[in-house]
Amino acid sequence: MEAGGLLVAFALQKIPKLHPQKSPLAKTKPIDEHPYMTPLQQFAKRIVENTRFQNFIIFIIVLAGISIGLDTYEHIHKQFSHQLELANHIILAIFVIEIVLKLLAEGNQPWRYFYDGWNVFDFIIVAVAFLPIDANFVAVIRMLRLLRILRLINAIPQLRMIIGALLKSIPSMVYIFMLLILHFYVFGTLATILFSSNDPKHFGNLHTSFVTLFRIVTLEGWSEVLYINMYGCDKIPYEPKDMFPCTHPHPQPVVAVAFFITFIVTGSMIVLNLFIGVVLGGIEDIKLEVAAEEKSKQRAEQVKNNLPIELTVEEYLSLLQTQIQTLNDKLDWLVSHNPPNSASPPQGTNIPKQPTKQSGGSKKK
Amino acid sequence: MEAGGLLVAFALQKIPKLHPQKSPLAKTKPIDEHPYMTPLQQFAKRIVENTRFQNFIIFIIVLAGISIGLDTYEHIHKQFSHQLELANHIILAIFVIEIVLKLLAEGNQPWRYFYDGWNVFDFIIVAVAFLPIDANFVAVIRMLRLLRILRLINAIPQLRMIIGALLKSIPSMVYIFMLLILHFYVFGTLATILFSSNDPKHFGNLHTSFVTLFRIVTLEGWSEVLYINMYGCDKIPYEPKDMFPCTHPHPQPVVAVAFFITFIVTGSMIVLNLFIGVVLGGIEDIKLEVAAEEKSKQRAEQVKNNLPIELTVEEYLSLLQTQIQTLNDKLDWLVSHNPPNSASPPQGTNIPKQPTKQSGGSKKK
Amino acid sequence: MEAGGLLVAFALQKIPKLHPQKSPLAKTKPIDEHPYMTPLQQFAKRIVENTRFQNFIIFIIVLAGISIGLDTYEHIHKQFSHQLELANHIILAIFVIEIVLKLLAEGNQPWRYFYDGWNVFDFIIVAVAFLPIDANFVAVIRMLRLLRILRLINAIPQLRMIIGALLKSIPSMVYIFMLLILHFYVFGTLATILFSSNDPKHFGNLHTSFVTLFRIVTLEGWSEVLYINMYGCDKIPYEPKDMFPCTHPHPQPVVAVAFFITFIVTGSMIVLNLFIGVVLGGIEDIKLEVAAEEKSKQRAEQVKNNLPIELTVEEYLSLLQTQIQTLNDKLDWLVSHNPPNSASPPQGTNIPKQPTKQSGGSKKK
Amino acid sequence: MEAGGLLVAFALQKIPKLHPQKSPLAKTKPIDEHPYMTPLQQFAKRIVENTRFQNFIIFIIVLAGISIGLDTYEHIHKQFSHQLELANHIILAIFVIEIVLKLLAEGNQPWRYFYDGWNVFDFIIVAVAFLPIDANFVAVIRMLRLLRILRLINAIPQLRMIIGALLKSIPSMVYIFMLLILHFYVFGTLATILFSSNDPKHFGNLHTSFVTLFRIVTLEGWSEVLYINMYGCDKIPYEPKDMFPCTHPHPQPVVAVAFFITFIVTGSMIVLNLFIGVVLGGIEDIKLEVAAEEKSKQRAEQVKNNLPIELTVEEYLSLLQTQIQTLNDKLDWLVSHNPPNSASPPQGTNIPKQPTKQSGGSKKK
Repeated sequence: MEAGGLLVAFALQKIPKLHPQKSPLAKTKPIDEHPYMTPLQQFAKRIVENTRFQNFIIFIIVLAGISIGLDTYEHIHKQFSHQLELANHIILAIFVIEIVLKLLAEGNQPWRYFYDGWNVFDFIIVAVAFLPIDANFVAVIRMLRLLRILRLINAIPQLRMIIGALLKSIPSMVYIFMLLILHFYVFGTLATILFSSNDPKHFGNLHTSFVTLFRIVTLEGWSEVLYINMYGCDKIPYEPKDMFPCTHPHPQPVVAVAFFITFIVTGSMIVLNLFIGVVLGGIEDIKLEVAAEEKSKQRAEQVKNNLPIELTVEEYLSLLQTQIQTLNDKLDWLVSHNPPNSASPPQGTNIPKQPTKQSGGSKKK
Repeated sequence: MEAGGLLVAFALQKIPKLHPQKSPLAKTKPIDEHPYMTPLQQFAKRIVENTRFQNFIIFIIVLAGISIGLDTYEHIHKQFSHQLELANHIILAIFVIEIVLKLLAEGNQPWRYFYDGWNVFDFIIVAVAFLPIDANFVAVIRMLRLLRILRLINAIPQLRMIIGALLKSIPSMVYIFMLLILHFYVFGTLATILFSSNDPKHFGNLHTSFVTLFRIVTLEGWSEVLYINMYGCDKIPYEPKDMFPCTHPHPQPVVAVAFFITFIVTGSMIVLNLFIGVVLGGIEDIKLEVAAEEKSKQRAEQVKNNLPIELTVEEYLSLLQTQIQTLNDKLDWLVSHNPPNSASPPQGTNIPKQPTKQSGGSKKK
Repeated sequence: MEAGGLLVAFALQKIPKLHPQKSPLAKTKPIDEHPYMTPLQQFAKRIVENTRFQNFIIFIIVLAGISIGLDTYEHIHKQFSHQLELANHIILAIFVIEIVLKLLAEGNQPWRYFYDGWNVFDFIIVAVAFLPIDANFVAVIRMLRLLRILRLINAIPQLRMIIGALLKSIPSMVYIFMLLILHFYVFGTLATILFSSNDPKHFGNLHTSFVTLFRIVTLEGWSEVLYINMYGCDKIPYEPKDMFPCTHPHPQPVVAVAFFITFIVTGSMIVLNLFIGVVLGGIEDIKLEVAAEEKSKQRAEQVKNNLPIELTVEEYLSLLQTQIQTLNDKLDWLVSHNPPNSASPPQGTNIPKQPTKQSGGSKKK
Repeated sequence: MEAGGLLVAFALQKIPKLHPQKSPLAKTKPIDEHPYMTPLQQFAKRIVENTRFQNFIIFIIVLAGISIGLDTYEHIHKQFSHQLELANHIILAIFVIEIVLKLLAEGNQPWRYFYDGWNVFDFIIVAVAFLPIDANFVAVIRMLRLLRILRLINAIPQLRMIIGALLKSIPSMVYIFMLLILHFYVFGTLATILFSSNDPKHFGNLHTSFVTLFRIVTLEGWSEVLYINMYGCDKIPYEPKDMFPCTHPHPQPVVAVAFFITFIVTGSMIVLNLFIGVVLGGIEDIKLEVAAEEKSKQRAEQVKNNLPIELTVEEYLSLLQTQIQTLNDKLDWLVSHNPPNSASPPQGTNIPKQPTKQSGGSKKK
């Protein structure tokens, strides 16, 4: 037997957390969750789990997306109205069939289909097509159809993973988001109190102020808003003037500058914190997942090919520790079989009693 | 006894820095800082520490915030003026009662309440309501009331932590901030010298130049300012023209381009440094805090359930070192009890004298 | 012999993964891929591999770039037309000679030149000069010549490395890019449905909407687009009004605000993810490459100067493990030569059988 | 003696790379670089090294900066002209005296003052005040005086460190910067070829194109430039129209969109790479420096107080390795003094010969 492989086997055998000992029953008991399925159900299951079928569905979803996109072009909408409508019916039929197959594939427990949130999402998207919406609400019907393209997220596992990673990093950001809300509320109310009479377009009331603050925090054209409140609304032209006439020009140079600079510095710091937090969290998550996968793949290959595997530092240390215990046991044996010179070696010397016992104890178990 | 648990116990026992040995007195002496409290004080303490009371206060703070927000809408202000004023009085009363309770809860040392900076902050926010401000200064009164919503930071521990993390990363940034100030001062003075006659709106005097430079460093509409100084103020329209007439048009194409590009590149590098420094420092701080908490939680659980705990590298190394010392002691014993062949084993061989003594010494202590 | 050097030699000898044992044949068999070359071919090879020739080519490429840049100035183009044309012919000739030399340098396997993608890129760039393009298409001819400056990437290895690192990080980003496409498609179609009648300039049809969404995701002037759709196209002036007349003003304040804020927040998050992912991935790649190079350089120097080399943690652990096995072997010898007290020491005590064998086995191999 | 302290001493003694053994001569030979100084020179040295004097100079630099800032205000310049001029003379005198003192402080080797680049920088800044500049060039004189405030960088060590860290990260960025130049050159020339006739303001010639591309890469108002080239210069109003009349309107919708999107995506990726690289490099540098300082401070304190010091992983491993070697030496002794059973223990068993020798050899040296 190859020594490197043996070393690995030895190392791994001593690290229970990497290869948790499963109960032997787990292997003999087949994980058969659908003890009885009709031939039709088995057929549905085979189809649903077929890669070609899954790719076909992805293709149909993309097709559905394209058809909705084409439909927004006026001349295509007029000329190919019937064809697009027909395509829409066919796509809908395929989606319905797919859901039926997936329900069948769950055997006599069709409700299991709804255990996955993304399946519920899929189901609702398809189901809304059957709502009795008046044909006059063209925009609404189109938008509901547009949602179908979101089914791609459920159909492509990697997209699910990315969305999942982004969603997972949200909870850790909830308090920074709360801080952002608080920040907007304080500055929004303050801006309304300070600037509403001078600049009704941007700070006329609380909800308008929030929109303006969002605009300012993206740094988009904030200097125009600053100048209006710095020099007064009568000095700086802005549109639509007829909707928001400048009735109370009230220049506040110092207040406006202080307000805008303070808001931009603190606001962009919080927003940056939030974004960088979410993005870095997401990237890290995906990296860790990919790295773990690669590590286990590499390890498996090394074990298979009897190559010397690269241990992690922790595994190395665990291995060293085990080997030193072996040394200790042998020394214990030597000490206990060296009687001629002393009757009670352990007591007479400074060998710590407890660790020795402990080491031995760990072997006996 | 389970071996893994023993191993852990052994490992932990040997790492004093992780489990600092507290003096036994520390445990027997009760940490009772208020040896005598009247029943009323005890009642106040119980209330103040009650989670429901704390949530009630959070609710009242949010209510106070909403009432101020609603008050900014003109029609609500007119129609519900009395109700809002009443609500304001009730909220103020609740806040006063809360502070009184918190003062009582400190027993016969009420000044301890002011030891926490956030409590002082709370106290001042509530106290300003009693300043004799003329009812005509509606804006001032509203702004002072608006501050009340900042009490949320003290009321929600996580917000305190985030604000704390951001504030803590500021000192490390003080010199980069100083560099930014220096950068702005040099470029601001330079811009005033170069462009004040041509472009009084943006660079008329030093403080106007600072505002313009802040605008440019946020990259907001900087090309407009560039073109004014590149082609002269008579070529490019800008507002308010009546406040800042173009009396000395003075195009400086090369100087303006060199100035703006240099300022933007160096300025945004320093600002990015500052922001990324603060944000990454804050995120790291929060992460470390959360990780340490989770680690200790996980460790506690593993010890409780007698699971093999995952040691950190440092703990592993400390464990290995202890085990090797044990081996050393046993070998010493063997060496000293192996007399037939040699009279003075240590001197005759190349066993380093000092480390051996040292290892022994560390045991005896 | 110096002890530190010996220690290193010992350590390195025991770490096969750092110094993979190559088969002895690999060293004796000369890696001569061109067994026979004519003197001309050998001459070409020597020239092509000469650093001065390579620098000369870099110089010529830069010259080619400058000549194209100068050519865009109208007065230079008119005055020095002949000279620039002549320079262009000379540059082209040099490039052709370079390619011929490189083809010759490959000996009797000239097609090997095309094995490197960058060489193909070079070849095509030079070859297009011989396409029979009508002299009237000045712009096309100039643009094709402009491509020559891209040959710098192939000529300067560090640029190749950076481009390589950026390209290498693209595959890991393919699904985030797919998510971005999906995001743009959904919001683009939605915007076309919602805003096309009110704002034909920005959302007139699907492809116009994509351009506008790209503009919005860069946060450039998005508030103007928001206001047009918030207040209606008749209220906000925009250009060119004659191309996109405001025929169906349709203000949608709530819908527009919700659409823009949602799109900006989610869109910039995905874009940031993509960019930060590519950038950080690229930087990390370059850093790792540079660090590995420096490490090996430092190590080589330490070995050469017989200095105590700084081992990595993994090498240290490997060294420790080897030393412990040595101890184990010696202890085994001691145990097996300590017969007076016990006949079968290993079986009678708790020395684990398998690890001992394994340790020994790894030696024998 | 305290065991922890001993352990540390032992550990440190064995790690020569942390405490390089200096030759004993180094300590006895005083590092006296100025063997003879006149009393005046010694006095100058004492003053120059005095913290109060250094703070005084910082104060004077700040004062010089403020005086130049105030001088830019027209009314202050007129009213306090004499006072400011007097202050300027005093400041200049102090700076001259400072430089003289620093030159004296170098003893009989005054040229050593110029060994530090920042001192040369200081010297030049002060020296330019004596250039015979015509008093009419007020702007030039003011700008030269403005430079004095940059002396703060030399006066405050932390600013020097930050600037140093930023400058140090530049070399590693030189090829990304080269890539950026290449990118700008290719796109600038391309834009000039494509858009110069339609849009002379933004792409009239090569250098104008570079300014416009810089504007676009900062994402400032790039959509305006896009629309001009998408719809033609006659459709979109721009200023100054009299300087850049629209003589050849030439709309290129597809080309313009493709050009701008490609340029923005690739350009901002390279710029982001450059900036993030410089910023992260700088932050890392500063962090490492601060961490190393803190580590050594902490270590010194732990050694002083005889506390168990926290070893780094590498030091721990080095310590373990030394201890195992001690074990090995003792085992060697045991093996060699265990003769009754076997005449040649090493040859008869599988103890590796070379490592043993090596371990022993490292002791003897």
